[in-house]
Amino acid sequence: MSENRKSGDGGPVPQAVVSRLSLYLRELQQLVRGGCETTSSTQLGLVLGFTDAQVRKDLAYFGQFGYPGLGYRCQELISEIKRILGTNHQWPVGIVGIGNLGQALLGYRGFGEQGFRVAAAFDSDPTKVGQCIEGTPVHHIDDLATVCEAEDIKLGLIAVPAAAAEEVAQQLVKAGMEGILNFAPITLNLNEQVGIVSVDLAIELEQLTFAVVNRRKNA
Amino acid sequence: MSENRKSGDGGPVPQAVVSRLSLYLRELQQLVRGGCETTSSTQLGLVLGFTDAQVRKDLAYFGQFGYPGLGYRCQELISEIKRILGTNHQWPVGIVGIGNLGQALLGYRGFGEQGFRVAAAFDSDPTKVGQCIEGTPVHHIDDLATVCEAEDIKLGLIAVPAAAAEEVAQQLVKAGMEGILNFAPITLNLNEQVGIVSVDLAIELEQLTFAVVNRRKNA
Repeated sequence: MSENRKSGDGGPVPQAVVSRLSLYLRELQQLVRGGCETTSSTQLGLVLGFTDAQVRKDLAYFGQFGYPGLGYRCQELISEIKRILGTNHQWPVGIVGIGNLGQALLGYRGFGEQGFRVAAAFDSDPTKVGQCIEGTPVHHIDDLATVCEAEDIKLGLIAVPAAAAEEVAQQLVKAGMEGILNFAPITLNLNEQVGIVSVDLAIELEQLTFAVVNRRKNA
Repeated sequence: MSENRKSGDGGPVPQAVVSRLSLYLRELQQLVRGGCETTSSTQLGLVLGFTDAQVRKDLAYFGQFGYPGLGYRCQELISEIKRILGTNHQWPVGIVGIGNLGQALLGYRGFGEQGFRVAAAFDSDPTKVGQCIEGTPVHHIDDLATVCEAEDIKLGLIAVPAAAAEEVAQQLVKAGMEGILNFAPITLNLNEQVGIVSVDLAIELEQLTFAVVNRRKNA
C-alpha cells in the first residue's frame, strides 16, 4: 500500500484524501436519499467530524465542484467522486477462499450498493466447488484464469488464511488481476505488478483502542 | 470518525499516522519472527512503500525511539507502539450480530494475534442464543449490559445489517462501551459519547479501483 497515489493531473494525492472521498460519497448518497439536492462543505463535514476547510481542500485536489452561493449539487458531486474513484461503472470482482470470511464477503450488501458485483468465487475444497453461495458460483482455484477472463474480472479479493495468501496473490496476478484486496493478515510482496489494498481488521480495532485510551486521558 | 486525535502530550496526531503505527507494528512483528533484533527507518519503510523520512516523522509524534548508529531495537519499538495504541494489555471485545460477518469475525485469528479476545457474542435469534461458536458463547442481546459488565467488555463490534445498526449502537453505549467498531455501511450518530471507527469494506474496494485507474493512466 503506497502512501501517495497520482491524481488525474499528475499531482500526488495523499492516501488519506482518497479514503475521505469515499466518506464524502457515502454522506452525499445519504443526503440524496433524504431528499437534499444541494449541500455545503460545512454540512458535508459536520456528520463526519471534518471542518469545512478540510472538505474544500480535499475536493480541490481533483477540481472545482462547488457553485458560489449554492454550494455543491449532490447528484453532480456524487458522479464526480465516482468518476475519480473509478466506480462510475460496475466492476466484477472475484473472491478467493470460501471460509467464514469469504462467505461473509459473498453476502456483504455494501459491495453491490457501490457498484461492485461479486461475479465468481474460488476455493480448492471439492465440497464447495460447484456450489452457488449468495447467488455466486464457486469455482475450483485451478480455473481462476479461465473464469476471470470470461467474466472480465480485474479485481481479486483474498480471503484465505495468511499461510496461503502469498501463493494466491501470485495466482491472481498470473490470472490478469489489476488490483488485489487482501484480507489475510500479512504484507504481500508483489513488486508493483498490481494495485494492492490490505484490510487488516485488527488495525481497525487498534485505531479504536487508540481513540479510547486518548479519550480516557482527555476526560 | 474524527480526523485528528490527541497524542499523549496533547499535540494533534493525524489519523493517517495512527493507521501507519499499526503497519509499522506488523512489520516489526514480522522482522522479529524472522530473527531481526534491530531495524532502520529505511528498512521499516521499504516493504510498506514509505520513505525513511516518513517513518521517522510518524514516530516522532510520540517520542524518540531510535539509537544513533544502531537504529531501532525491534522488540522495544513493538512495546512502545503497543503502549501508544493501547494494545499493551488484552482487550475483551463483544460482537453483536452473528450472521455471516459476525461468524467470520468470531473466527478471525488476526484479533487474537494483536491482543484482542472475543469474549462474548450477541444476537436476538433464539436458534443462535446459547450456542458456542469458535469458542465464544452467544448471548441474547437483552443480556448485553449484564454480560459486558461481567466480562469487562469496553469494545463492541457491530455486525448487524445497516437498518439495525443505530439501535444496536445505542444499546452498546448504554451497556458501557467506550469504543465501537462498526461494520454496518452507515454513519452512526452518537454525539461523541464513545469512540467510533467505521469499517466500510466497499471503501477498501474504492481505494483499490482508484489505484487501478491511476495505474492505467500512468502506464
